[in-house]
Amino acid sequence: MKVMLEKSLSVDERPGPVFMERTYPPIERNTATFDPKVLQLLLDGVHVEIRNSVKQLMTQPEFRYYYGNDIALYRKKVLGWMKRIAETGIGRIVLPRSVGGEEDLPRFIAAFETLAFHDLNLIIKLGVQLGLFAGSIQRLGTEYHHQKYLPDAASGTLMGCFGMTEIGHGSNVQGLETTAVYHRPSDSFIIHSPGYTAGKNYIGNAADDGRLAVVFAQLEVNGKRHGVHAFLVPIRSENGDPLPGVTIEDNGLKMGLNGVDNGRIWFDQVKVPRAEMLNRFAEVTAEGQYQSEIQGQAERFFTMIGTLVSGRISIAATANSAAKSALTIATRYAARRRQFGSPKAIQESLLLDYPAHQRKLCPLIAKVFALDFALKHLIDLNETVHSGNSRPLETLAAGLKAVITWNTTQTIQICREACGGEGYLAVNRIGALKADTDIYTTFEGDNTVLMQLVAKNLLSELKDEIKGMRPAQRVRFFLDQRLGAIARRNPRFTFDIRQSHLRDPEFQVAMFRLRESTALFAAGRAFHRLICKNQLDHYAAFAHMQRELLDLAHAHIERTVLERFALLIRTMQPSPLKLVLKRLCDLFALSQMELNKGWYLEHGALSGLKSKAITKQVDKLCREVRPEAVQLVDSFGIPDACLAAPIAL
Amino acid sequence: MKVMLEKSLSVDERPGPVFMERTYPPIERNTATFDPKVLQLLLDGVHVEIRNSVKQLMTQPEFRYYYGNDIALYRKKVLGWMKRIAETGIGRIVLPRSVGGEEDLPRFIAAFETLAFHDLNLIIKLGVQLGLFAGSIQRLGTEYHHQKYLPDAASGTLMGCFGMTEIGHGSNVQGLETTAVYHRPSDSFIIHSPGYTAGKNYIGNAADDGRLAVVFAQLEVNGKRHGVHAFLVPIRSENGDPLPGVTIEDNGLKMGLNGVDNGRIWFDQVKVPRAEMLNRFAEVTAEGQYQSEIQGQAERFFTMIGTLVSGRISIAATANSAAKSALTIATRYAARRRQFGSPKAIQESLLLDYPAHQRKLCPLIAKVFALDFALKHLIDLNETVHSGNSRPLETLAAGLKAVITWNTTQTIQICREACGGEGYLAVNRIGALKADTDIYTTFEGDNTVLMQLVAKNLLSELKDEIKGMRPAQRVRFFLDQRLGAIARRNPRFTFDIRQSHLRDPEFQVAMFRLRESTALFAAGRAFHRLICKNQLDHYAAFAHMQRELLDLAHAHIERTVLERFALLIRTMQPSPLKLVLKRLCDLFALSQMELNKGWYLEHGALSGLKSKAITKQVDKLCREVRPEAVQLVDSFGIPDACLAAPIAL
Repeated sequence: MKVMLEKSLSVDERPGPVFMERTYPPIERNTATFDPKVLQLLLDGVHVEIRNSVKQLMTQPEFRYYYGNDIALYRKKVLGWMKRIAETGIGRIVLPRSVGGEEDLPRFIAAFETLAFHDLNLIIKLGVQLGLFAGSIQRLGTEYHHQKYLPDAASGTLMGCFGMTEIGHGSNVQGLETTAVYHRPSDSFIIHSPGYTAGKNYIGNAADDGRLAVVFAQLEVNGKRHGVHAFLVPIRSENGDPLPGVTIEDNGLKMGLNGVDNGRIWFDQVKVPRAEMLNRFAEVTAEGQYQSEIQGQAERFFTMIGTLVSGRISIAATANSAAKSALTIATRYAARRRQFGSPKAIQESLLLDYPAHQRKLCPLIAKVFALDFALKHLIDLNETVHSGNSRPLETLAAGLKAVITWNTTQTIQICREACGGEGYLAVNRIGALKADTDIYTTFEGDNTVLMQLVAKNLLSELKDEIKGMRPAQRVRFFLDQRLGAIARRNPRFTFDIRQSHLRDPEFQVAMFRLRESTALFAAGRAFHRLICKNQLDHYAAFAHMQRELLDLAHAHIERTVLERFALLIRTMQPSPLKLVLKRLCDLFALSQMELNKGWYLEHGALSGLKSKAITKQVDKLCREVRPEAVQLVDSFGIPDACLAAPIAL
Repeated sequence: MKVMLEKSLSVDERPGPVFMERTYPPIERNTATFDPKVLQLLLDGVHVEIRNSVKQLMTQPEFRYYYGNDIALYRKKVLGWMKRIAETGIGRIVLPRSVGGEEDLPRFIAAFETLAFHDLNLIIKLGVQLGLFAGSIQRLGTEYHHQKYLPDAASGTLMGCFGMTEIGHGSNVQGLETTAVYHRPSDSFIIHSPGYTAGKNYIGNAADDGRLAVVFAQLEVNGKRHGVHAFLVPIRSENGDPLPGVTIEDNGLKMGLNGVDNGRIWFDQVKVPRAEMLNRFAEVTAEGQYQSEIQGQAERFFTMIGTLVSGRISIAATANSAAKSALTIATRYAARRRQFGSPKAIQESLLLDYPAHQRKLCPLIAKVFALDFALKHLIDLNETVHSGNSRPLETLAAGLKAVITWNTTQTIQICREACGGEGYLAVNRIGALKADTDIYTTFEGDNTVLMQLVAKNLLSELKDEIKGMRPAQRVRFFLDQRLGAIARRNPRFTFDIRQSHLRDPEFQVAMFRLRESTALFAAGRAFHRLICKNQLDHYAAFAHMQRELLDLAHAHIERTVLERFALLIRTMQPSPLKLVLKRLCDLFALSQMELNKGWYLEHGALSGLKSKAITKQVDKLCREVRPEAVQLVDSFGIPDACLAAPIAL
């Protein structure tokens, strides 16, 4: 058979081709009631200056994205960006004053949050170097380590790794296999991987760039185990070769983040001097004795692990930035792309005018705002609880990390679908955002594990609260809680379907609280029953009630997020902006209630009629938010050079 | 500062390193009550022989996966695989008998479904060539086109494109801009792209390999428009250069499917002979007159588009295969990976023993089975409705395509998270499965658009049903429906919480039907009100009630899926396998009801107590399915060479 190949002839009855004029239709932008710059000021907060200087830097030509497929080249590019950022002294923001730093974590997180509008490989590379590597030296080490390592770590001169996760142990850090045996004759620790599964895994900077690693290992002194401690172990010479006794393997191609050189590391009897143990919480003395001010192996472990909190805050903040990028792209596209429409209309309808499309994007816009304000609260909290009970902080950091990263995954997915085929093209960046953030839900603590931690902490709080009570007090306490729950279930809350009521923050917060407290007492009762009646141990009891724990954790975090949002609005002066935020808060509250309507109905806290009214109210709020959608995403303040997606510019 | 680089010394007090023995722990496999081979026979069905020969071929060394990043090389690799498959004569299975084919679409789909266990780039490349390109010539063309093109298209000798989607028009095919003007003097059509947005977009085979394209364009004869028709237009010479008047641009890097050469095509007054119009449903005569047996432009259009049905079936089938691959990887990993555990236990617990992990995987396993059986029904239906009313077929094909591809996206996402960091490594293939299938939800008809089509078709069915009735009959019809709904809501259905009742298919199916019929009549009433009371036109009315339409479409497809599953079980002889499938069907039915519990509660169809009982029953079913989980995924029969993920082998 021959392919039909008659020459195509040009005929000139028709206008010539104009197909190379690739102008996108304009983005509809004139419909909002507020100035996005004003809202941006609110989002930028007190750290507007560092945000602006970061933006100024990352919009320079040298920060243009790399679109190729050469992994080696990509890693070099990301390393170059990282060093360029580090050189500016950003690392110093968070360093201790003793080594010339500012000790200003909130400012540092603001910088990170802004940097996350760029290629996420950069923020992960920076996070490994500054947050995990330098950060753990700072938080687990003492003056000796600070002086010796921090300045070079912060400037990117000394590239390092954070060697916690092992092949055999992802989330269960207490089960690590790597050993650090104190060797008296040489006054050193011998770091050793007893087998394949003891290899440190997914370690950023391991495959190419890292020269020094913070290694978490089971400390053994005089034949006695003292649990997991951290040690500084050199892994590469200055020329880049692995040192004797160190075996490094590249993790190879990943779903995303291929500009970051993750790898595996094994140690074969590698010796490090005693001083290289990070000894803030425990140390081995010159006499070869183990000592720690913290009694109990588990408590010591959790104190050390507690220093992961700021990492989780940063992860959550950067994940929310990624969701903002995707939402900006999808919303602007929806305000320019037309498809189908009334036969009577002059042009097809904007995607954003379809209720189904509004339903996809508007609640997500409201939610990233809600999560942004919750993050600001978490960052504040982190500043105030340096001493005292840190459990509420750990709980909120773990829970927000989980809820935000899941929300980011879901948001980017919906944005991809909302952009159709355009969303699938690399040039529009949603694919990269999705692939690079996908790991967020399982790293720095698997989300499902973290949410259980949240719930267990809440149960511990409850236990502490009732611990000191006499039996009669306890009965009254539970009765009060019951009565409180019943009181909160007043008939208005269950049946009133007027808009003024549905948009009343008192109603919304009460409903979120009801769900949380009901879940808390249900989990408490279940735990008590499993322990006392079914004679299970704590581990088995918690394993048995995982669903209840996850329900509780979600209810707690959602309630916290809503309360912070509602509080912010309550304290604002009347202004057009306040109305805009109030609408977003209503949409967040009611769309979450809609998602959880099964629970409310099941527990008799909503009538069927009211549940349906909430759905209609969400529809209405989506219509109300729609004219402001583009300005709302504009207020995220993402530079065009970072957004880069042609469909959004 | 100097990096600490003292030489690490080996000391020999400890056992030497054994870290290179990378043995994974065994996959726990001895817990099921049935032989997966027997279940596989049921899944393979009558087409076991073609499935086996496809497996035999694609497990040859030449089909080993490509893990590199060189896109040009990857495309060549995929093209090579495709040609190798095409050479075996697989294309002939579906060709008309007149050109030596078998006309056996079900067998062809079985082959496709099996091929989708391999790299999905291969199936998409094959789908473009055989399904879209050859398929449209077959379905829209006549004997002349069949004889001239089909043998070479089926063997991969003549590579081709399917030029429907345009830059300006994704889902709205009736709005295409490309024109085909009949030019009397040369007895030809002039194919022309009047502007940038008229370019054909995301066209598979366009960027590198395609030589002939099926081009959909607005036909104009003697100055009169006749709507969208298809034409065969050569686009490349035998040496691979674009022909004069044809401009081709590579779509560039994508989120996934980078082994497929998608591109954009513009035509500048390209002339093709009159015979190259695909003229099964309409043609231009030698006298230059337009004629068609189908009256009405819209009807003609939908007849042509109706031929997309088999493409949607294939897409759905291959998407379900991808979900099976991901579930096999995640389930096997969960049956070998241990993490945390009771302090009293000898070893940590298997992931699969955690209720939260069972909750992630088991309902998804049940659902892919349910969808598999529904697909088999759809394929049968497609064979029986070649004449007569094809609306139910189109409805089911559109709906199952949407529901299955969404389920695949969600399933792979959950599987990625269930595998933690391992799931993120390219070598374990979940990343590729996710990226390659992501576009499924928006191509071959955007899912949201398709679900609206489903709902509109159901409303049309309803309208047809009541059309001939006199007013009194109509009143009685609606009253009957109402009474039927009330009858189905018998108190047992609302309140009975015994296990025997919850697992009664009669109860389950009745509840799914109740939801569908309620949604149907609600949508019907809403439409009637919007048209009659609010005076909206059809377009505006449908746009206004998108949420209701989507609810209806989901309810309809879910009910259909459950009914097919329940029917299959009812017709099986008693056997251990029947019990296994019954459990999966219960899990599917009850976990879907749990997902939709908000609706049931809202409509008073479930009591709160019963809703909670359903949740507990889902927990219980997950526990019951857990020991069989590995054998269930084994029964998918995915060859190890295709699965490839080290964590699953």
